[in-house]
Amino acid sequence: MHLSPPSSTADKVSRRAAVIGRHLGPSASACGSAPLDLSSCISYVSPDVSEKTVFDPREMRRLMDGHDVEARDWVFRLMEGGALFCPRRRCGNQIFVAPDYNQTMEQQREMTMRRIQFLSEHGVFHGWLTGQGAEMEMRKFALNECVGLYDHSLAIKLGVHFFLWGGALQFFGTKRHHDKWLKDSEDFVIKGCFAMTELGHGSNVRGIETVATYDSRSQEFIINTPCETAQKYWIGGAAKHATHTIIFSQLHINGNSQGVHAFIAQIRDENGNVMPNVRIADCGHKIGLNGVDNGRIWFDNLRVPRENLLNSVADVLSDGQYVSAIKDPDQRFAAFLAPLTSGRVNIAVNAVYVSKMALTITVRYALTRRAFSVTPNGPEVLLLDYPSHQRRLLPLIAKTCAMSSAAYHLKMIYVKRNPDANKLIHIYSSALKAMLTWQNLKTLQECREACGGQGLKSENRVGVLKSEFDVQSTFEGDNNVLMQQVSKALLSVYASAQSKKQQFKGLGLEHMNDSCPVIPENMSSSSLRSTKFQTEIFNLRERGLLHRYANEVSQYQSQGESKESAIILSYQVADELARAFTERIIFQFFAEDDMSTSGPLKDVLGMLRSMYALICIEEDASFLRYGYLSLKNAAAVRKEVTKLCTDLRPHALAVVNSFGIPDSFLSPIAFNWIDANSWSCSNIP
Amino acid sequence: MHLSPPSSTADKVSRRAAVIGRHLGPSASACGSAPLDLSSCISYVSPDVSEKTVFDPREMRRLMDGHDVEARDWVFRLMEGGALFCPRRRCGNQIFVAPDYNQTMEQQREMTMRRIQFLSEHGVFHGWLTGQGAEMEMRKFALNECVGLYDHSLAIKLGVHFFLWGGALQFFGTKRHHDKWLKDSEDFVIKGCFAMTELGHGSNVRGIETVATYDSRSQEFIINTPCETAQKYWIGGAAKHATHTIIFSQLHINGNSQGVHAFIAQIRDENGNVMPNVRIADCGHKIGLNGVDNGRIWFDNLRVPRENLLNSVADVLSDGQYVSAIKDPDQRFAAFLAPLTSGRVNIAVNAVYVSKMALTITVRYALTRRAFSVTPNGPEVLLLDYPSHQRRLLPLIAKTCAMSSAAYHLKMIYVKRNPDANKLIHIYSSALKAMLTWQNLKTLQECREACGGQGLKSENRVGVLKSEFDVQSTFEGDNNVLMQQVSKALLSVYASAQSKKQQFKGLGLEHMNDSCPVIPENMSSSSLRSTKFQTEIFNLRERGLLHRYANEVSQYQSQGESKESAIILSYQVADELARAFTERIIFQFFAEDDMSTSGPLKDVLGMLRSMYALICIEEDASFLRYGYLSLKNAAAVRKEVTKLCTDLRPHALAVVNSFGIPDSFLSPIAFNWIDANSWSCSNIP
Repeated sequence: MHLSPPSSTADKVSRRAAVIGRHLGPSASACGSAPLDLSSCISYVSPDVSEKTVFDPREMRRLMDGHDVEARDWVFRLMEGGALFCPRRRCGNQIFVAPDYNQTMEQQREMTMRRIQFLSEHGVFHGWLTGQGAEMEMRKFALNECVGLYDHSLAIKLGVHFFLWGGALQFFGTKRHHDKWLKDSEDFVIKGCFAMTELGHGSNVRGIETVATYDSRSQEFIINTPCETAQKYWIGGAAKHATHTIIFSQLHINGNSQGVHAFIAQIRDENGNVMPNVRIADCGHKIGLNGVDNGRIWFDNLRVPRENLLNSVADVLSDGQYVSAIKDPDQRFAAFLAPLTSGRVNIAVNAVYVSKMALTITVRYALTRRAFSVTPNGPEVLLLDYPSHQRRLLPLIAKTCAMSSAAYHLKMIYVKRNPDANKLIHIYSSALKAMLTWQNLKTLQECREACGGQGLKSENRVGVLKSEFDVQSTFEGDNNVLMQQVSKALLSVYASAQSKKQQFKGLGLEHMNDSCPVIPENMSSSSLRSTKFQTEIFNLRERGLLHRYANEVSQYQSQGESKESAIILSYQVADELARAFTERIIFQFFAEDDMSTSGPLKDVLGMLRSMYALICIEEDASFLRYGYLSLKNAAAVRKEVTKLCTDLRPHALAVVNSFGIPDSFLSPIAFNWIDANSWSCSNIP
Repeated sequence: MHLSPPSSTADKVSRRAAVIGRHLGPSASACGSAPLDLSSCISYVSPDVSEKTVFDPREMRRLMDGHDVEARDWVFRLMEGGALFCPRRRCGNQIFVAPDYNQTMEQQREMTMRRIQFLSEHGVFHGWLTGQGAEMEMRKFALNECVGLYDHSLAIKLGVHFFLWGGALQFFGTKRHHDKWLKDSEDFVIKGCFAMTELGHGSNVRGIETVATYDSRSQEFIINTPCETAQKYWIGGAAKHATHTIIFSQLHINGNSQGVHAFIAQIRDENGNVMPNVRIADCGHKIGLNGVDNGRIWFDNLRVPRENLLNSVADVLSDGQYVSAIKDPDQRFAAFLAPLTSGRVNIAVNAVYVSKMALTITVRYALTRRAFSVTPNGPEVLLLDYPSHQRRLLPLIAKTCAMSSAAYHLKMIYVKRNPDANKLIHIYSSALKAMLTWQNLKTLQECREACGGQGLKSENRVGVLKSEFDVQSTFEGDNNVLMQQVSKALLSVYASAQSKKQQFKGLGLEHMNDSCPVIPENMSSSSLRSTKFQTEIFNLRERGLLHRYANEVSQYQSQGESKESAIILSYQVADELARAFTERIIFQFFAEDDMSTSGPLKDVLGMLRSMYALICIEEDASFLRYGYLSLKNAAAVRKEVTKLCTDLRPHALAVVNSFGIPDSFLSPIAFNWIDANSWSCSNIP
């Protein structure tokens, strides 16, 4: 068994031999009789010394970050330098920055607000609301990702203010709103929140019960919380800091309901006192994100001027006449929500970035932590030299790289959006938000366990991230609900192609117009690693599942079920299909990036691409269940995954280093954890 | 589609119609124009009213608890009544008890200690160390499970003191130790901890570097921490409260190492000052269990009298002569660790109990929370009436019930142990500790997401449990390491049967002596639900995987790999095998209990048993990968799982109610969460 990677060079071997010597030599057996003779200890060898790199990590980083590398480093340095970011010095003059999770909720909230002020004063948010264009939007994404790496609460509190409150102003509002609010919001003269979700209705926004009734005499909207279930819930910023809010509400005019609309209201005065006709309560302590002051809001005949209706989609004239360019209420509703997609894009992107941080910490630890020996008195083995440990971590690295590509392309599609692309953006952002956040939780859990007990220490970050990012799977649209929308969308593309006897068009389903791919019975290792096979097998699965889904739904309908019921009853294959679709688009994005490179980096990216494709195949039983892959090929895939583990093992460090996470954002176990835990280092105040 | 369960009775239907009416009737559409007219709100209907029970939950509870039902209720009442347990009154005079997770680590630690004093004063621990016999051990387990439901920190701090410190005294110690320490420990006159793990060595206990050298002149052992990696780490109780510890250390006599032994030492005086020659540091803030004061210990020529060696297995005579009844060091080492199995038993059992609590909360919420409607203006549907939501929760309930049976039988096997059973107990406790804790984490994650945002609120408990119990997967033996020991043990049973051309004997592998089961190509629904088929398919998989594993290992050996390397390289099938073994024994235990019942309960248990068996089959691709099941049968299994969801749906509430979790240990979303979130209730101090 190769306990040191195949790539190990002579000097590496000798260096390891020396380590083993120190660990096992005569001095070691005499360990007991020579107390405090440190030469006899397990000694730490930095992986940066023991591992080698065959490609330029900066090139790889440009690919992984995708954009604004310099801006990222700038804000990283800014946070490293700020006393508010709790820098902690450990042995070897290493400094780590991370929030103090031993603070109470109240303290964490104040720290988050103060950090925002600090970043604001240093110009981080300059142009976030007054700026224009795709470049600015990409830069916003990048900076938000970086602050989110420091603390999810920070990114979320900023996200609520800039992307939800600010985004609503920009997209639902018109000039009068922009002139009045955007600049002050960018400067935090006013702090915005976003009151959409209610106690009784979360993902089902259409069902919200808050009501705005137009009073033509005073030309005001009278906003009410008619029921306890209509109380606004989870409103980030509402509990403490927000001065203004967007209120989502049913609009009633002369007894007619016009559906959900958005209004601006002030909820606190400049001194922070809650405004009249508004009641606010706290959502209380949460399992994470305690730096965000989530609150609940009730409205009691709150009057807001007619001008506070965000009227880009529809407007109410002074006499109460309702006017809208979009006649169909469903389309109007969709138009309302479309711009909010940025929230989902943010979430998907942040999820991947966090996985990168956790994997960097975990891999660096696995390259310095030893456990058990293979021969009676032999050296203990590095965790990452165990095939089983490689199998736990390397596929996660590959998936993270692939999802990183997908996240980048999602951002690009979003910032270059046009009305025709709304549907595509909605489906891509839904699918990727769900799959990337679920994968992040899986990755964090595996990393936590792979770090053993050290994964439980807050200072090592990996474990903390689990509760901090858990929210991602259910907010901004419950993942399961989002995935149902994905399969529904695929079904409607299918239906329209069938009904009109046309070609498949949209959501990348064009591959279904080609003849069905045929996979040979016995695939060789090299063909399993070919982009051709990988593309075909993903297409084959998606095609097969879409047919299955359509058939199952129509079968239920022929049995008398309504279309809605038929879809609800076909949830199993619908779920398989939505995942197959998402894995296919992720693969396509990653393969694109892989092709744009050359040299040794291309080789490593090729391995990562193959690992991504083959691990998706191994993990999804539907390939066997529906015979998309022969048993022989399935066995070959499994073997190949193990081979890829061995092939990627020597590049593990180089890949995680290329994620570009600053050392100060990692943790003691990513470096010399023996020194960091030594008595002398443990007693630095 | 049946949106109300098939079992729904006329009056239930009418009750639901009324609810829908309130939600949708004219008053509802007038919701906006009639502010604060509560009749127009979504109204809460208690599932205890809307759902019905066909069996006696008390009978089911006796089965699920297995033993000491009265003792459990007694200690539950005790905690409900104690002000130290933070009772919170919510609307409807409902009281919930739960720790305040918004407290700092330091505060949580003090609260845990004070709660222990309270329980001690009320006689909860009476006889825990001075008592004898299987009944007392079972009662201890039961009470520890109940305090663990309140707070994991409480159970762990007690576990360290009673099961590790106390257990070591009882099992490794002899009369002189019992007389001196047991009574005072039971009364908390002294507080014990257990210093085994070191910074450099966790699961690999054999590798610890602490050294005890015997000094025959003074008849003392001189204990040293020779290296920073030898510092004792994660020692529960060490950071603040413990006065005494068991030290695991290499024993050196006249330059010869005798391997790992255990010694007693005092680490704090009556005033809580750290003793001379001992240094203690804090492990710091963790993602959970912050009520436990984990610490790190260094020893500097600490002298302990010869009598402090725990000498049940081996002893050192005054002249330094080493004597032991067990000559083989490996067996001696095993004998040392065997009694500690109680720790793993505790962990496995607690994991299941916690899943029961989370599922009770989640199912009750799913029976009162509505989302989306299936028809344009139709009523919103209860979460648990969605087939997809049933598919998420009901299999988890079945697994939890099955694992509850397994946990009970594990306890029985443990308390009735004899030396011959050591191997079996070690393997069963390892396998069940790993699988039950992993399943618990899966269950908690699914429950958290199934509760949506409410799952994130600490007051709703489900989310908090994730970080509190995460530690279970790596402490007291890393789950992956434990599962490797399981497959190794199976391999050695296989090897000895092969080599001696004998029958398979041990670990329940006797089924391999029978002819290989043959599964018909096309199984009917009823045969899929038969114990016969389920038994056969579990046996078939285990048999097949064991053959595969043995072959793969010997293949690697024939290629020149050492046995250890061959085993390490065969990790994939080894893992499949260990899981197959564990699922098989869980099934057997559950089937036993199922057979012991009768009447309507037996029917429901039968469905749960079938759900457990079929979901295990659906989730493990190895059935298809290795052809243990035909594609046709696999498809049939999938269909049957969906059917079982429909069949179990009406019994969901009755089953979780029979878990016997007191209402006060549940959370607001398990009851009237609309009232609990109302303005008037939210402002009770």
